[in-house]
Amino acid sequence: MTIKNAFYAQSGGVTAVINSSACGLIQTARKLPDRIGTVFAGRNGIIGALQEELIDTGQESDESIAALRYTPSGAFGSCRYKLKSLEQNRREYERLIEVFEAHDIGYFFYNGGGDSADTCLKVSQLSETLGYPIQAIHIPKTVDNDLPITDNCPGFGSVAKYVAVSTLEASFDVASMAKTSTKVFIVEVMGRHAGWIAAAGGLASSDETHVPVVILFPEIEFDRKNFCRHVDELVHSDGYACVVVSEGVRDRNGKFLSDQGLTDAFGHAQLGGVAPVVASMVKQDLGYKYHWAVADYLQRAARHIASATDVEQAYAVGKAAVKMALDGANSVMPAIIRTSDDPYEWVIEAAKLDEVANVEKMMPRDFITDDGFGITDACRRYLEPLIQGEDYPSYHRGLPSYARMKNVLIGKKLAPFEI
Amino acid sequence: MTIKNAFYAQSGGVTAVINSSACGLIQTARKLPDRIGTVFAGRNGIIGALQEELIDTGQESDESIAALRYTPSGAFGSCRYKLKSLEQNRREYERLIEVFEAHDIGYFFYNGGGDSADTCLKVSQLSETLGYPIQAIHIPKTVDNDLPITDNCPGFGSVAKYVAVSTLEASFDVASMAKTSTKVFIVEVMGRHAGWIAAAGGLASSDETHVPVVILFPEIEFDRKNFCRHVDELVHSDGYACVVVSEGVRDRNGKFLSDQGLTDAFGHAQLGGVAPVVASMVKQDLGYKYHWAVADYLQRAARHIASATDVEQAYAVGKAAVKMALDGANSVMPAIIRTSDDPYEWVIEAAKLDEVANVEKMMPRDFITDDGFGITDACRRYLEPLIQGEDYPSYHRGLPSYARMKNVLIGKKLAPFEI
Repeated sequence: MTIKNAFYAQSGGVTAVINSSACGLIQTARKLPDRIGTVFAGRNGIIGALQEELIDTGQESDESIAALRYTPSGAFGSCRYKLKSLEQNRREYERLIEVFEAHDIGYFFYNGGGDSADTCLKVSQLSETLGYPIQAIHIPKTVDNDLPITDNCPGFGSVAKYVAVSTLEASFDVASMAKTSTKVFIVEVMGRHAGWIAAAGGLASSDETHVPVVILFPEIEFDRKNFCRHVDELVHSDGYACVVVSEGVRDRNGKFLSDQGLTDAFGHAQLGGVAPVVASMVKQDLGYKYHWAVADYLQRAARHIASATDVEQAYAVGKAAVKMALDGANSVMPAIIRTSDDPYEWVIEAAKLDEVANVEKMMPRDFITDDGFGITDACRRYLEPLIQGEDYPSYHRGLPSYARMKNVLIGKKLAPFEI
Repeated sequence: MTIKNAFYAQSGGVTAVINSSACGLIQTARKLPDRIGTVFAGRNGIIGALQEELIDTGQESDESIAALRYTPSGAFGSCRYKLKSLEQNRREYERLIEVFEAHDIGYFFYNGGGDSADTCLKVSQLSETLGYPIQAIHIPKTVDNDLPITDNCPGFGSVAKYVAVSTLEASFDVASMAKTSTKVFIVEVMGRHAGWIAAAGGLASSDETHVPVVILFPEIEFDRKNFCRHVDELVHSDGYACVVVSEGVRDRNGKFLSDQGLTDAFGHAQLGGVAPVVASMVKQDLGYKYHWAVADYLQRAARHIASATDVEQAYAVGKAAVKMALDGANSVMPAIIRTSDDPYEWVIEAAKLDEVANVEKMMPRDFITDDGFGITDACRRYLEPLIQGEDYPSYHRGLPSYARMKNVLIGKKLAPFEI
């Protein structure tokens, strides 16, 4: 059987566990040297492939590869670079095939979210028309949790755990001070279009904790009057309120509550700062003392409080990607299929990429309470398993022992390519 | 020997470990039933004493009291309420003595920062002049780490660990995306006057991690031009920069970079939102893509990543306070005295309250690098021991098992008192 090399790239916003997928993939490939040659990683994602900057992961020790499981961020570099459509920029796709051919690469593993799934789909299609056979496998990753088919997206469970834990802790803080100090605490979390991350804040509230959480979802049109009335009721009944607001919340005109006017390379609006906007409303309309936090990158990088379930699933999809490739699959994504809520059980199955790409999975309406400010029991049954278990990194001198790779590039064989 | 009851109150901003001090105090008192009667806790701090709202901690099980060690926030409620001076409001001090006398309280334990130390000092002095003997012991607590004499203030080590870990994790994130995305990440941390918390961000940078951290201390006058030049140099040399900015940073006119115009009950300016101000400068002067976070309460409530050293010391000062009281001490504070940096060794000694109250310990200038943007080796030697060790709470269904007390109030014996 022919041995082919593999190309692996990390794409888009990184997470606390994307390196766990890399670990699963590389460790699995290393166990099959008669099937897979070298795993090359793209330096800074797909840009590394276009510019023929290929990291030889074979230069990394087994210990370093094992450490990927415990290291947040993208160890080989990621990027926000969306390949244009075939019509607009066919040369980029052709360049990829050239690079793959030059380095005897037969497997293309792309670790990312919805946009990356689309790129991966196009690569799988183009290789056929250009006569260079390459198997393109998409490995799911996005804290936004908005990919279809898969039960959840690796990266999400850990952010969900961070948000649930942080909301719980902050609520204890506020509860103990509310008599004379802050009565409304607002924490802004990620989630451009889908409210999955904000929903996780709802887990802080349970029959045991009784935390008065108010969630502002991007799926629900923001109504200032309703919101302030709801917060006011909670302050009267519970003494305080914790607001978890998604960065993507919009008003009735579809305008983001806070829009910095920036857009990222994918053309998405770049947000930030909705928490102080909401805080100002609380101050103006209710007069309560408030505090606000913006978790930003802290939430998606927080490997120290990663969900063990998430780490395991991230590893599993990396491992499954290799297995699927060696089984001859193309244009698929290893998807997590839930078979039981409690105990949480799941298997991995191949999802067709053309059913994954460009589909955004929003929160179902029945996961959100009628008043639009909380999560339902159905949502809780869905979310709870995803934050189960702790998977602590080891520590040295008080800090986590996160690893950096050597990231040795192989020699180039092709002419430079401008992007 | 006469058995007297004790009064314990939590004061000011709560921390991840103030309940560990409560745990140390109550557990120690429970072992000495022939010396100390009931420990009454003030409901919402000193307000509970003034209004005769006394929680009978004897109603809590041993398991609940043990759980205090693992629970962030102020379990009995805290408050921002500073007693006025004796001249301005003698009736409040007299009321305290009345309440203590009515409930046979001979020990006054006040768990707080600098303002609370001042209150505790006044109580200790007044009891003598009013002819009701009460021993007043101050138990140190403040994330700001600005009390004198003691090596550090319980609460600080855990915030320092949170900030160091978060800065490290976010820097890994930014490093892996900087090629095409965010080049400057800014995280705002607490510290109204002293830069201790911001300094902890410097621990993320070491010979192993090489993280390009820029710290903005309240002790150093902010100079926009110098700052932007420094950030620019790091982006050129390292590809990115992580800025840790203290909420208390001021410009050359002494004005807070961001001032919401609010003041708290102690008369301190209430801050928030310096991170977006700094981010705007980066955007305007350098044009780099940026992201910013505001940790706010998340940092001081983060029991999930508490420093084991901090938890232990918080417990130890609570325990020592009881011992000192039973040894007849009055108007003192158990202070942590460092005897060795590495290995970190410390003992607890009594510090005189009149040498503690109203003294703020700033960062020594030789803890800050000449350029004003980093920490020196001396600072590192000081800080490193304080973040050592992890002390994880237990988890249930993916969340920490934090405890809530029953907080049963005892019957009132006095007329109501308006504050």
